[in-house]
Amino acid sequence: MSTDSISDRFVATRQRFLAICQPLELEDYGLQAAEFASPPKWHLAHTTWFFETFLLKPFVPGYQSLESLYEVLFNSYYNGIGNQHPRGQRGLLSRPSLQDVFAYREHVDHAMLSLLATVDDREDRQEAEELIARTVLGIEHERQHQELFFTDIKFSLGANPLYPRYVAGDVNAQIPTAPVSWTAFDGGLIEIGYEGSDFCFDNELPRHRTYIESFELANRLVTNGEYQAFIDDGGYERPELWLADGWATVQREKWGGPLHWLDSGGQQLEFTLMGLQQRAAAIPVAHVSGYEADAYARWAGVRLPTEAEWEHVAAMSYGLDRNQATSQDSARAALCHPEAAAGEDLQQLYGACWQWTQTAYSPYPGFAPSAGAIGEYNGKFMSNQWVLRGGSCVTPPSQARPTYRNFFYPQDRWQFSGIRLAR
Amino acid sequence: MSTDSISDRFVATRQRFLAICQPLELEDYGLQAAEFASPPKWHLAHTTWFFETFLLKPFVPGYQSLESLYEVLFNSYYNGIGNQHPRGQRGLLSRPSLQDVFAYREHVDHAMLSLLATVDDREDRQEAEELIARTVLGIEHERQHQELFFTDIKFSLGANPLYPRYVAGDVNAQIPTAPVSWTAFDGGLIEIGYEGSDFCFDNELPRHRTYIESFELANRLVTNGEYQAFIDDGGYERPELWLADGWATVQREKWGGPLHWLDSGGQQLEFTLMGLQQRAAAIPVAHVSGYEADAYARWAGVRLPTEAEWEHVAAMSYGLDRNQATSQDSARAALCHPEAAAGEDLQQLYGACWQWTQTAYSPYPGFAPSAGAIGEYNGKFMSNQWVLRGGSCVTPPSQARPTYRNFFYPQDRWQFSGIRLAR
Amino acid sequence: MSTDSISDRFVATRQRFLAICQPLELEDYGLQAAEFASPPKWHLAHTTWFFETFLLKPFVPGYQSLESLYEVLFNSYYNGIGNQHPRGQRGLLSRPSLQDVFAYREHVDHAMLSLLATVDDREDRQEAEELIARTVLGIEHERQHQELFFTDIKFSLGANPLYPRYVAGDVNAQIPTAPVSWTAFDGGLIEIGYEGSDFCFDNELPRHRTYIESFELANRLVTNGEYQAFIDDGGYERPELWLADGWATVQREKWGGPLHWLDSGGQQLEFTLMGLQQRAAAIPVAHVSGYEADAYARWAGVRLPTEAEWEHVAAMSYGLDRNQATSQDSARAALCHPEAAAGEDLQQLYGACWQWTQTAYSPYPGFAPSAGAIGEYNGKFMSNQWVLRGGSCVTPPSQARPTYRNFFYPQDRWQFSGIRLAR
Amino acid sequence: MSTDSISDRFVATRQRFLAICQPLELEDYGLQAAEFASPPKWHLAHTTWFFETFLLKPFVPGYQSLESLYEVLFNSYYNGIGNQHPRGQRGLLSRPSLQDVFAYREHVDHAMLSLLATVDDREDRQEAEELIARTVLGIEHERQHQELFFTDIKFSLGANPLYPRYVAGDVNAQIPTAPVSWTAFDGGLIEIGYEGSDFCFDNELPRHRTYIESFELANRLVTNGEYQAFIDDGGYERPELWLADGWATVQREKWGGPLHWLDSGGQQLEFTLMGLQQRAAAIPVAHVSGYEADAYARWAGVRLPTEAEWEHVAAMSYGLDRNQATSQDSARAALCHPEAAAGEDLQQLYGACWQWTQTAYSPYPGFAPSAGAIGEYNGKFMSNQWVLRGGSCVTPPSQARPTYRNFFYPQDRWQFSGIRLAR
Repeated sequence: MSTDSISDRFVATRQRFLAICQPLELEDYGLQAAEFASPPKWHLAHTTWFFETFLLKPFVPGYQSLESLYEVLFNSYYNGIGNQHPRGQRGLLSRPSLQDVFAYREHVDHAMLSLLATVDDREDRQEAEELIARTVLGIEHERQHQELFFTDIKFSLGANPLYPRYVAGDVNAQIPTAPVSWTAFDGGLIEIGYEGSDFCFDNELPRHRTYIESFELANRLVTNGEYQAFIDDGGYERPELWLADGWATVQREKWGGPLHWLDSGGQQLEFTLMGLQQRAAAIPVAHVSGYEADAYARWAGVRLPTEAEWEHVAAMSYGLDRNQATSQDSARAALCHPEAAAGEDLQQLYGACWQWTQTAYSPYPGFAPSAGAIGEYNGKFMSNQWVLRGGSCVTPPSQARPTYRNFFYPQDRWQFSGIRLAR
Repeated sequence: MSTDSISDRFVATRQRFLAICQPLELEDYGLQAAEFASPPKWHLAHTTWFFETFLLKPFVPGYQSLESLYEVLFNSYYNGIGNQHPRGQRGLLSRPSLQDVFAYREHVDHAMLSLLATVDDREDRQEAEELIARTVLGIEHERQHQELFFTDIKFSLGANPLYPRYVAGDVNAQIPTAPVSWTAFDGGLIEIGYEGSDFCFDNELPRHRTYIESFELANRLVTNGEYQAFIDDGGYERPELWLADGWATVQREKWGGPLHWLDSGGQQLEFTLMGLQQRAAAIPVAHVSGYEADAYARWAGVRLPTEAEWEHVAAMSYGLDRNQATSQDSARAALCHPEAAAGEDLQQLYGACWQWTQTAYSPYPGFAPSAGAIGEYNGKFMSNQWVLRGGSCVTPPSQARPTYRNFFYPQDRWQFSGIRLAR
Repeated sequence: MSTDSISDRFVATRQRFLAICQPLELEDYGLQAAEFASPPKWHLAHTTWFFETFLLKPFVPGYQSLESLYEVLFNSYYNGIGNQHPRGQRGLLSRPSLQDVFAYREHVDHAMLSLLATVDDREDRQEAEELIARTVLGIEHERQHQELFFTDIKFSLGANPLYPRYVAGDVNAQIPTAPVSWTAFDGGLIEIGYEGSDFCFDNELPRHRTYIESFELANRLVTNGEYQAFIDDGGYERPELWLADGWATVQREKWGGPLHWLDSGGQQLEFTLMGLQQRAAAIPVAHVSGYEADAYARWAGVRLPTEAEWEHVAAMSYGLDRNQATSQDSARAALCHPEAAAGEDLQQLYGACWQWTQTAYSPYPGFAPSAGAIGEYNGKFMSNQWVLRGGSCVTPPSQARPTYRNFFYPQDRWQFSGIRLAR
Repeated sequence: MSTDSISDRFVATRQRFLAICQPLELEDYGLQAAEFASPPKWHLAHTTWFFETFLLKPFVPGYQSLESLYEVLFNSYYNGIGNQHPRGQRGLLSRPSLQDVFAYREHVDHAMLSLLATVDDREDRQEAEELIARTVLGIEHERQHQELFFTDIKFSLGANPLYPRYVAGDVNAQIPTAPVSWTAFDGGLIEIGYEGSDFCFDNELPRHRTYIESFELANRLVTNGEYQAFIDDGGYERPELWLADGWATVQREKWGGPLHWLDSGGQQLEFTLMGLQQRAAAIPVAHVSGYEADAYARWAGVRLPTEAEWEHVAAMSYGLDRNQATSQDSARAALCHPEAAAGEDLQQLYGACWQWTQTAYSPYPGFAPSAGAIGEYNGKFMSNQWVLRGGSCVTPPSQARPTYRNFFYPQDRWQFSGIRLAR
């Protein structure tokens, strides 16, 4: 990749983060309503820290950080780098102020562009390529945090009884949705995992063989209306529908519906990035945990897909998904909430909700993480989490690909996570 | 009290809160590092809520609040009014924004001044006096929250590894302090409790007789240097010096010194409202719990005073305390941290640190709280807390009086709470 | 006190513990349903440990313990002696077995009697008297644990859905009870605290002057029927009746009535040491916390007595209380549950329920604990607890005296704690 | 299966439970030192409850239980049956007494044998077979609880500072162990899952195809000595060796070695069912969590096997494992603790320690649980747990088979769980 190309991509990614923060009030930047929901200001600083830590400090002799404590404050979980400010206390960092964080970003952007300008002329090509690879990783990393920005601020604003909105707008409730249809796929020995020369994360490798049985996949995601029928049928009161740990979670957390659902004054509402909205029946249900997705599937007499099944189907239709294209061009409102499925072919692989699979997140056969602290990126999380596939309305479209492995704990609900069924 | 007088006092108190907030960054206004440490913005709104709830809503026909939910959001603990936003989540209210809260204050100030303008002409004098009494209570209430503003923001800023300061300045470490001296007082049947026609809180009443034995009282507070000797002598490792609940707290919280003390890089530091400072030996130790005060006294072979003893002495010297006078005229720096005792007469009753007594907070014989929700002000807290007497460097001087009963749980440390000994 | 006298008292006390354990199943001896409710086997061993630790080890040269680890296992809270087995894990000590504990008791009894036989002939009379004083303390200590035996096993058996009874029998529900009557007492400067030459605990000293206002005291305790009226009037749903910490406890613990009350199948039941019984309206309400006692008093428009008031009245009527006499002679059934008040004079000072006072437990002026570890007996608990006065149906009658200060946290309910009103 | 055969197997299994309880003190039967470690008495009752609930109540008209509350008290987790006594409070059931539980067992045994006597003559053969199938399931279920009996009582006795032993005996530390050797296996499309006409659990079905890569498997388990080298190399202080959740567990639980390891007085000890013993270097390390197994493997530069790999190897050598044969004939001492591996061929598949795999416990493709409450046996636990394969020294030998899927949470350590490596 040329210097120009990588620098352009770097600049565009960095600028996009500032753009998506625009609608916030200054007071929102420090908001953290749960340990998992980092403040916008922290995301802005941490993504900057990533470039500083893995590019500038090792590759720029004499590089000076603006503040040595940032190394601790904005380290997320890299034990190889050193101590970390406690995750649940990120919202207590009223300082550095937002202006200080903007200055930090500028300082690092400037140094990064200077560094990238040296790439073409480097004699040590291996180092030059390492430098490019890390920069690309930093860009992809920042894109991931841009998605987290949306889900974290949605969660944190949703904890305020005033239900402030992130942006003006309305959910698009006008699209009619047809009943779900099923497509059959033959089983056999297939290959999954990334293959190609563009970027992928280490957990998408190596490409390898796996055996699947024949199966059918639903053409679209489960809707709010369908999920309401599950609730109305006592879904949250019937232990036989749930995994044991899921049922314990339902009891402990007193769940009675998806996160962000709210019944108030006789109205069925949903908190969205555009504030409280009527729940539209045809829109995909979002913000369900893996346990809820699994219980819904059991209630419906079917099951969740495996990640191999999902990838197998997605790989065949790669590039053809309407929602993916739409989401790339969409205006802000479309970006902020899933839309209903319009047609009867395979829909909503990307651009609506992440789709829980029944597959526990574990290493592919032969998986090897990178050397050093950067190797903590994915590998160490390979226990107790479930794989989600696809992408959501707030996923940067450039990250939508068949092999991408997202992962969360089965009790997590603050992502735009939904349900696609298999049988 | 005339309309002019009460209005002036109202305006002065309201303006003082804005003035003491001036040094903050906007991001600091929402900061809450513990359940007990409310954000500045919340204090600004809650003190406003008090006037709205107890004056405007009952006395101004047709009064319109800016936002009906403020009734819940800014209710501290008045069950008689209704529900309360959870105390530990005050820091999650990024909205209303600070501008919104300023608008709320202006809205209420305007309505209050209009209401107060009606007082002189009211035919129903009982109502007029109730109105004045509640306004005075609201003013005293706001003064209390101005003290909490200082101790809460000190606690919350102190949770940031950058240790940001509230204002510039330095601790005054130049005053020489003489060894403690003791004054003897005769016991007998005395009277305590408020007597007079100015304001007092309900818990200072009724004035009543109580019997005390003869005793001696220390002329000044325990200093940092003296407290360091207690630590150096193993004070925090010797259970025999502690109350059982205190020792359990030391173990559970891993206490090894007062809150805000910090040993770093070979230096003995103290976090102050002026940032990290060298600990000055002659300055009174502050931010100790009742348990620590009690353990120190036991180590020193003496004890804490009772509240009756303290008040008995303070009443005799009322109006004569040098620190009290000083603190009224003091510049900001003096306001922000206790100073060393200068002389050998009775010192530091007010203006340095609150002084733990050994007396559990309970009603005076014949105590009767006010009717209605406003009666929740003091009475319902009369269990499990200890009485502190005097006043601190951040106490509004107008609240320094011999009969004032402050109270906190014996494990609380975030106030400017210190130690005066008796024997 | 002569050797014979002290030895006799020692033997009688030790034997009584074995006698009151008789009705248990072997499996009950290890039962601990909460951290505060120690198993019978532990009480049997700990009271033995007390004699071993404070008498045998210091006064018998060459004394050999059966097992050195008992020093840790059966130490309750004496930091001056050394480490303690965690309080909440006493129920996990299946070994030593009950037979081992009986052997431990016999071993210590034998050594104690040998030691006591030396008292009369000792030349060092100071040591001889210290030896007697400690033995008396050990006897009183064991009597206290005999009371705890009853309340602890009642609590632990009550956690079993089978509600097993400790002994056969029935509550005496036949005594008619007259409405409460009030007696007036003049205020003034009085004296409280132990005065005499028999035994008292250190916390009953020194006798000292205190001033009380005139007051009235109820002649009997609040009954189940009267307490039911409080519940029926919404007592547990009205925060204005409660101290703030009490209300928080009601919410957190979901209290809706006294401990051991049970409404089942349309019946109003009460778990007693004789199993589930109908709740009799005339019997004193027991197993209420200090918070509940205080809330009941507020609902009734009166208040709890102070400990000085209670002692002042009790001292005047000392020796005249009918219940006290009754309880000494009572058969097992009477011993196991309070009975209704029979007359209209002052009733139930002892022998029914401990009576919550509004007084926080704190040292009397001039209080000085004993030297050494034995000084941990009372003094270190003088914070956060409330004083109860009188005695209950399971209190050894020898401990019923006007000056006895019992103390528990205001949330504690597992003692036979009831309510006497004052105004 | 004939009536005689099934009755014999029933009786033998029931009697074995009484036999293995023999060494206990009566007080040990109620012991529960953690929520997961049920008391022996509860195991004895619950296994009885299983036959009563799934055989006697549905198949024996007019069957009378001894006590209707046993349905709740001894229900482990079957929501389809009804409520359950809280798991963590099983140790609080001092009643029913052990004698009562023995009577319960006899009552149910008698009724079961009468029921089984009817099988041969039943006209409804489908019902007869269901009856046999459930009885077999009940027998296998009781065998599983016999294994839990050993690990639970070991855990509970190990919480006692006296470290009481279950039986007399000594660990066999005399067997020399050769360095580990590796055997290579070809990858390919294989089949796993139970195939045959004897008993298997539902989670071993259906037999299905899966694809594995070529791999090597260690011939024996990791030893105490090898694991000590991991500790000595800082294994518990190096986060890079651990999964993120594992590292968090190490920090939270302050782990520094396997459960039941104890360094005391300069000695390296291990608590065993025969009391405290010297740790023998050649004996397999036991009582490690999945996280520790995984970290050890990473430190050793290899990995844990998948369950498919393990089963593939075990299926080839089925019936040939020396340890399996040994364990069947072994005396008590061998039964109570793993022994060292003697040879260089494939060792210790069974009879020493369960072996953690890297495979998350999830349903085989096409898995279908039984209908009704009995279907809760395995399926609902298929999240967040890891598969272990093989069997331990306390596993009933009849349950040792290549397809058996054991499962525990990766943080669990109280089973005899060890480490076999793959690469």
